[in-house]
Amino acid sequence: MEQDFRALANLYKTALLDDVLPFWERHSIDWEQGGYFTCLDRNGKVYDTDKFIWLQNRQVWTFSTFYHQIEPREDWLAIAANGADFLAKHGRDAAGNWYFALDRSGNPLVQPYNIFSDCFAAMAFSKYALASGKEWAKDIALQAYDNVLRRKDNPKGDYNKAYPGTRPMKSLAVPMILANLTLEMDWLLPSNTLEHVLNATVEEVMTDFLSDASFAPYSDRKLMYENVAPDGLLIDCFEGRLINPGHGIEAMWFIMDIGNRLGDSKLVHQAIEIVLNILDFAWDREYGGLYYFMDTKGHPPQQLEWDQKLWWVHLESLVALSMGYRLTGRQECWDWYEKLHEYSWSHFADPQWGEWFGYLNRQGDVLIDLKGGKWKGCFHVPRSLYLCHQQFDALSAAQAYPY
Amino acid sequence: MEQDFRALANLYKTALLDDVLPFWERHSIDWEQGGYFTCLDRNGKVYDTDKFIWLQNRQVWTFSTFYHQIEPREDWLAIAANGADFLAKHGRDAAGNWYFALDRSGNPLVQPYNIFSDCFAAMAFSKYALASGKEWAKDIALQAYDNVLRRKDNPKGDYNKAYPGTRPMKSLAVPMILANLTLEMDWLLPSNTLEHVLNATVEEVMTDFLSDASFAPYSDRKLMYENVAPDGLLIDCFEGRLINPGHGIEAMWFIMDIGNRLGDSKLVHQAIEIVLNILDFAWDREYGGLYYFMDTKGHPPQQLEWDQKLWWVHLESLVALSMGYRLTGRQECWDWYEKLHEYSWSHFADPQWGEWFGYLNRQGDVLIDLKGGKWKGCFHVPRSLYLCHQQFDALSAAQAYPY
Repeated sequence: MEQDFRALANLYKTALLDDVLPFWERHSIDWEQGGYFTCLDRNGKVYDTDKFIWLQNRQVWTFSTFYHQIEPREDWLAIAANGADFLAKHGRDAAGNWYFALDRSGNPLVQPYNIFSDCFAAMAFSKYALASGKEWAKDIALQAYDNVLRRKDNPKGDYNKAYPGTRPMKSLAVPMILANLTLEMDWLLPSNTLEHVLNATVEEVMTDFLSDASFAPYSDRKLMYENVAPDGLLIDCFEGRLINPGHGIEAMWFIMDIGNRLGDSKLVHQAIEIVLNILDFAWDREYGGLYYFMDTKGHPPQQLEWDQKLWWVHLESLVALSMGYRLTGRQECWDWYEKLHEYSWSHFADPQWGEWFGYLNRQGDVLIDLKGGKWKGCFHVPRSLYLCHQQFDALSAAQAYPY
Repeated sequence: MEQDFRALANLYKTALLDDVLPFWERHSIDWEQGGYFTCLDRNGKVYDTDKFIWLQNRQVWTFSTFYHQIEPREDWLAIAANGADFLAKHGRDAAGNWYFALDRSGNPLVQPYNIFSDCFAAMAFSKYALASGKEWAKDIALQAYDNVLRRKDNPKGDYNKAYPGTRPMKSLAVPMILANLTLEMDWLLPSNTLEHVLNATVEEVMTDFLSDASFAPYSDRKLMYENVAPDGLLIDCFEGRLINPGHGIEAMWFIMDIGNRLGDSKLVHQAIEIVLNILDFAWDREYGGLYYFMDTKGHPPQQLEWDQKLWWVHLESLVALSMGYRLTGRQECWDWYEKLHEYSWSHFADPQWGEWFGYLNRQGDVLIDLKGGKWKGCFHVPRSLYLCHQQFDALSAAQAYPY
């Protein structure tokens, strides 16, 4: 594959602006009752009208972000507003916590059983406030941010099924989401908050969640773990042995981005190293693609879907590798990028009906041909296409003016 | 396939007594700390020592049942006692509710978040009381039974995430488990309890959970639904559209058994009809085997593992078909039995290392080669082998003395 960065930048931009965003604009907006339909079949037809708060908020975020960062198109702002207004009215319980799901007209279906709904709400309303200039959106963003801070040490609250004390554990998702959120909301927060949170995140993620090699006989290199003891020790149980390659890789491009902001090139290289380790560990040598879940010891994983190939895992890897290559020029990043590019564009993109498939079986055939559902919405595809475009755009500029 | 019922009866008996039970006897008993290891790899090696209450109780049930019904072998009773003593000591919280999981030594890991742990405890201790004659086991069984009755209208209690009132729903699992439990505990309950519960179950299951044909354009025949509105109406949402073929078929052999007890041959035939409908709906015409989950309208299911072939689905179908054939002699039962027999014995049984595989991919290849885990233990395989043996034993006797 040729290193034609301009062509790659255009590929991603065209896919984003001429295929993916129009798909969601055409099929997903519930102009009648507010919010979005996210359950869309292969050609965009709505097959279920329930409204899942993660995806509702993520779509507000996507259209607000692109309005703010790509082009202030009124139709994009109107789409963001259609979600934001609906969510402001129906998304929260009396205590201000964000539900997990609503029915089409906004009646609550599923209680606020973890903090991720609040995380995505904070991100959505922060970006919507930036895009729209609405003061009330800022208030909603800050309230959701406070919920996250208040509940972060017990993200599931009363719905936490773990018996206290027997086997305390913390999850990679919590520091990652907190850092992500704080970056998004920097403009609304006290001036030293961001620096403080980013430093704490880097420290916790790169110390506690990195593997002890003796615990991973199937790999002599460090991996990112999903769940560890509060002091960072590894736990020999299903949750403790779990590797979620896509999540680890997503976390690492995030750390690269932070390293780049802080001018810490050692951190950038360390994050790249871990991405390469995870890719090597999780690449399916028989059929290609990255596994969804693995057990660090090679034991049977609990997740029956462990060998499936998921869209977001591959898109986040494209982001990590293009970013790693842009920041360091390392050949391994390019080699892996080519491999992932070839696999992802030939398996996930759907030139016939638009957008990307979400779920392939191990062999790479489409397993479920939805374009959107309870977990796949207008988020990973457009965000990743946009981020990859940015990396190649910068690489192309550097190629054109290499001084 | 020849209708040599004696040979089939022997096949099932040999598999049970010479393969499956010895596998669990050899590998799963934690003589040191009590209870059982259920996480066993292909050749029986323990890969995780956590103790999941469903499977612990089910193994007590299995060995107690076989001690009581097959042969009073002291080694079987000792195995049952090793689980019962451990569970009596560690299985319940201060209020008497059954946890979901313990660590190896019995410390609670996962709270009592639904009533199924209590159901399986009631079944286990009832059978253990019968086998061992221990009075205290009766008390534990009755206490667990009371928990189930008390909590049956809200099986998840405080852990129920559904927002009250928006979309009320009831699950097939609840009446089925209650009927099963009451049958098991008949000898401990007031004399009219069983008749009352069985009548109510038959009425509810065969009325409320059977499909409205207009709701199932992909089938012109009635199917068994997992979740319906309290009044039996179908709900057009993910849970409401869900068909779990194995569960529906298991429920129907249970209804056949009740019909047979009540001398209600119309009910037996009705249950068989539904089994045949479900098999027709859920049989994979390309690769063989029965799907795990389906959407009645053919929409994308939420369960990523929907197309996998699971051991218990096929074993419960073998029970339903052999029982249906024994009770009615219907040719369709025999034809489907042959098809299921051929698929199951050639794909799930593991002649090399013993016991049965649990999880195949759609193509029928082994997906996860465990013999036991968090959900697969010493239960469906031995119970189904035993029940199939019984059907063919009866058919063989009728063949020998057909009057």
